[in-house]
Amino acid sequence: MTQRVRVQNVTVSRDGIGAGEEQTLQRPFGHVDPTELMAWAFATASFPGRTDGGGSRGLEDRLTRDFARGIGAEIMGRHKFGPQRGPWDADDDWIGWWGEEPPFHTPVVVLTHHERAPLSVGETTFHFVDATPEQALARALELADGRDVRIGGGVSTLRQFLDADLVDEMHVAIAPVEYGHGLRLWDRPEDLTDRFHLERVTAPSGVEHCFFWRR
Amino acid sequence: MTQRVRVQNVTVSRDGIGAGEEQTLQRPFGHVDPTELMAWAFATASFPGRTDGGGSRGLEDRLTRDFARGIGAEIMGRHKFGPQRGPWDADDDWIGWWGEEPPFHTPVVVLTHHERAPLSVGETTFHFVDATPEQALARALELADGRDVRIGGGVSTLRQFLDADLVDEMHVAIAPVEYGHGLRLWDRPEDLTDRFHLERVTAPSGVEHCFFWRR
Repeated sequence: MTQRVRVQNVTVSRDGIGAGEEQTLQRPFGHVDPTELMAWAFATASFPGRTDGGGSRGLEDRLTRDFARGIGAEIMGRHKFGPQRGPWDADDDWIGWWGEEPPFHTPVVVLTHHERAPLSVGETTFHFVDATPEQALARALELADGRDVRIGGGVSTLRQFLDADLVDEMHVAIAPVEYGHGLRLWDRPEDLTDRFHLERVTAPSGVEHCFFWRR
Repeated sequence: MTQRVRVQNVTVSRDGIGAGEEQTLQRPFGHVDPTELMAWAFATASFPGRTDGGGSRGLEDRLTRDFARGIGAEIMGRHKFGPQRGPWDADDDWIGWWGEEPPFHTPVVVLTHHERAPLSVGETTFHFVDATPEQALARALELADGRDVRIGGGVSTLRQFLDADLVDEMHVAIAPVEYGHGLRLWDRPEDLTDRFHLERVTAPSGVEHCFFWRR
């Protein structure tokens, strides 16, 4: 089986905003409230980390439970790991936003201009790599051990991989909210139809799910 | 994790028909053409056994690629294994409709009034069991080794498990065709909403996907 490069469950607003500005330790999404933006995913039975036994088991649960299927590694931007900028503080033993059992359970390549030693947290190992998208992908494909690579975002990282034409398949959810400003993925999904098939399906939640795959 | 009882990717016509009458060795679905009824699934990249690298990767691919996820055993009616009726012919070394590498890759409990020794084909072992739905499920849960059990059908078997209230979660696709007569799953999906949440989503293929989960 060929290894594929996949994007899963990234969510943007109707005006294409995937995260807010002014990210801080307390506010990973800046002025955007992730519980509003990602409400469709939090509501499902298979949302990572859910333990209460509740949640919906419809279309959107099929999407959250597909998150890890066949994935051997993730690539994320530094700001999806934490809010730090510039050189890492050598005394900083903070393990990132994802807690003691991050939901990845695979190697994760973290893109940064400031390399540091790998950090293992639970079943996830973060590799901090200063690399182009092509180089980072080569590394992740190797770490994935024959399985697929997920481009985890955030928005800037995803845009870099789309601009470099490195994505095979992508699911982006469009939440029924608007933010006006913030980190923007696109003007509209049709911007990508020169390279991708696009299928759009609206769920009963009001969220429109966009599925892209290479032409 | 609690083991769940799931139905995945069963397809019926608009008038609720899941298979035709007059099943023969050559026509597993009788007068119903499965390539018409299941066209939505055959068109996806993840349809079991597809090797040409083609196929769609939208919503319906998420459904076909979820088929085996977390499943440890299947229960099927005898007529999903083959067209034989009555006692098995001791000289019959036919391995069923599923070829030398059946798409199940787990133990399969085949409901029959005529027990016979287990049959291993590829990674699948068929266990031929004369049992009530409750007994068959207990056996399948044991064989599933902590994972979920899929009720694979056909229509009569699925109806038995629904009537015994043994299903936790169900996906049924409604194809845009009508047959007028045949093996009928239901008059309409709403018949089940006393016990299940129901979410209905129409895909661009014209197929309506019904997701049920327990209230």
